[in-house]
Amino acid sequence: MSSDSPEQKNVSRPRVLSGMRPTGKLHLGNYMGALANWVKLQDDYECYFFIADWHALTTDYADTSNVLSNIKEVALDYLAAGLDPKKSVLFVQSLVPQHAELHLLLSMITSVGWLERIPSYKEQQENLADKDLSTYGFLGYPLLQSADILLYQPKFVPVGQDQASHVELTREVARRFNHFYPRRSHSFASELAEAGSEESLHVLPEPQVLLTPAPKLPGTDGRKMSKSYGNTIQLTDPEPVIRQKLKTMVTDPARVRRTDPGDPDKCPVGDLHKVFSTPEKLAEVYDGCRSAGIGCIQCKGWAADALVQILTPIQERRARYTDEDVEAIFEEGSARAQVRAEQTMVEVRSAMRLPSASLRSGGSR
Amino acid sequence: MSSDSPEQKNVSRPRVLSGMRPTGKLHLGNYMGALANWVKLQDDYECYFFIADWHALTTDYADTSNVLSNIKEVALDYLAAGLDPKKSVLFVQSLVPQHAELHLLLSMITSVGWLERIPSYKEQQENLADKDLSTYGFLGYPLLQSADILLYQPKFVPVGQDQASHVELTREVARRFNHFYPRRSHSFASELAEAGSEESLHVLPEPQVLLTPAPKLPGTDGRKMSKSYGNTIQLTDPEPVIRQKLKTMVTDPARVRRTDPGDPDKCPVGDLHKVFSTPEKLAEVYDGCRSAGIGCIQCKGWAADALVQILTPIQERRARYTDEDVEAIFEEGSARAQVRAEQTMVEVRSAMRLPSASLRSGGSR
Repeated sequence: MSSDSPEQKNVSRPRVLSGMRPTGKLHLGNYMGALANWVKLQDDYECYFFIADWHALTTDYADTSNVLSNIKEVALDYLAAGLDPKKSVLFVQSLVPQHAELHLLLSMITSVGWLERIPSYKEQQENLADKDLSTYGFLGYPLLQSADILLYQPKFVPVGQDQASHVELTREVARRFNHFYPRRSHSFASELAEAGSEESLHVLPEPQVLLTPAPKLPGTDGRKMSKSYGNTIQLTDPEPVIRQKLKTMVTDPARVRRTDPGDPDKCPVGDLHKVFSTPEKLAEVYDGCRSAGIGCIQCKGWAADALVQILTPIQERRARYTDEDVEAIFEEGSARAQVRAEQTMVEVRSAMRLPSASLRSGGSR
Repeated sequence: MSSDSPEQKNVSRPRVLSGMRPTGKLHLGNYMGALANWVKLQDDYECYFFIADWHALTTDYADTSNVLSNIKEVALDYLAAGLDPKKSVLFVQSLVPQHAELHLLLSMITSVGWLERIPSYKEQQENLADKDLSTYGFLGYPLLQSADILLYQPKFVPVGQDQASHVELTREVARRFNHFYPRRSHSFASELAEAGSEESLHVLPEPQVLLTPAPKLPGTDGRKMSKSYGNTIQLTDPEPVIRQKLKTMVTDPARVRRTDPGDPDKCPVGDLHKVFSTPEKLAEVYDGCRSAGIGCIQCKGWAADALVQILTPIQERRARYTDEDVEAIFEEGSARAQVRAEQTMVEVRSAMRLPSASLRSGGSR
């Protein structure tokens, strides 16, 4: 790109979209599995990042008392991690009602069987057996994700491997939509085709997975870091809490005494070093642990140092935002998202031959 | 009511809501089964009548080429039948996107089993075996109806007996919603309670069925008049077409010859007389038929006279509306419906503790 205009830059950067459920304060696993990657994408892509508050209802409908505060925490964590409202559109799903409209329209062409066969459907029902997940909304949540994505006609969806089956559904739904409802404005389509953008001949281009490199990130108990295991290090944990959590973190079980040599490849703390420490420090860890030259306490101290170094700038950024700032940023972002979403919906309604935007002009929208 | 102000009148009249799918030009069965009753309701109720275009997609998603023209025909038939935009809010479902939003929110608390057990679910899948109705949207259409209804917090839903199970689902969904999400503005609730309006303590009051008296109305082949049987008399049929359709209408099969006496109680034409003829004319029909004093041709001519008398003013009203009139009326009605719907959604979002209207003020809505 030789142009400096952000407008022009926007036009040619491929669009990406991703989001997270507002589960409360985010942890290092969320950061390394998604946020850190999103932050990097901001310069090369036209980015839409959202907080999927309606999705929280698919499992937590029975108690919604934390939704608002969870949204606020996630919004703060987005900004703290380095998502920049000047570069990316940051928004809240429920403030863009077009998500619900597209979800409804796509529901008309989506087989119940497709939804029942998504692996996470049965899995989650089993994992969350204490909740009644036999609801219509829970069955439909992968389709709501498809609507979330297709509404912005993105080229890529940055997700982890565990979400790939959802993007596959999204592609299948888009394919079926484009089959039933070809774009109706032929001249526009031809123009695009001439411009070499074949994909956009379709109203809902099939998005591609942009696989997020997700390093293995253990929690303090050695299992995958996850809120439901209660083994997380949160992005907001102050230094003393980080050091305390590291102190009680499990290590290579074979290294019982200080004098036993250990194996960083079998140690959760070793895994943290691999992700966060410099190559030099990592070499010290391998040497010191295998030779019993260092003890676990010292090794954990180094890991804590690395985490503090990652988290300090994140926490400093977080502290700079007031509640009002966050609200204003996500309101403005949601308004921008709505404009973009409505642009897609105009095409969707036209292709489906539903009452068009012109008939809507008299409305209060 | 002693007040003359329409504003004040609105406040105290109970609200009703009903709608129809845009299946194309309406017929006498639609008129007698719903429209004629709606017209009467207009003076005593605050009425919302809509065209359920999204519902048309639940079965006809594969070919939507007629949706727009069908909406136009039904809109014209609403006005022709005597629905009055000065008395009632007439609108198009898809122009009020809040229907999709409430549908999505209610989906979170609605059991898939409830939807599978609605009698019409299996019935329609069998009746429309040529269509693939195994879609998520088709499964959810009674819930979309529930959202359509609850969005306007009506006291009554004027429906036929065949729709009573759908209103029962609506009541069940409302009950569950009110259980999980009590109204949060307590002072307002107490005020209402003091005013004696107990029902409104809940965000989504359970609506009651206002059973539409639906006389037995045979089509030209003697079966129930229905578009799918191709046996209808349309509201727009000109007099010669009405007379021609009556001429070929089936009669009491036991009356083979002109000289055989007949039984109007076993004759579809007799059923038409019971609905549309004056008591005097009906007496003539009974006497003449049972005594073989009149022939079927003459009896059918009388029935045609009665239909022409009913349909002429409807057709005259229809002719007075231009396409532009209809569009303007339904656009304005949809804008009014949107304002009312948004009022409910503000309460719904607040009760569910989702981002509130204040956070939305920055948006483009």
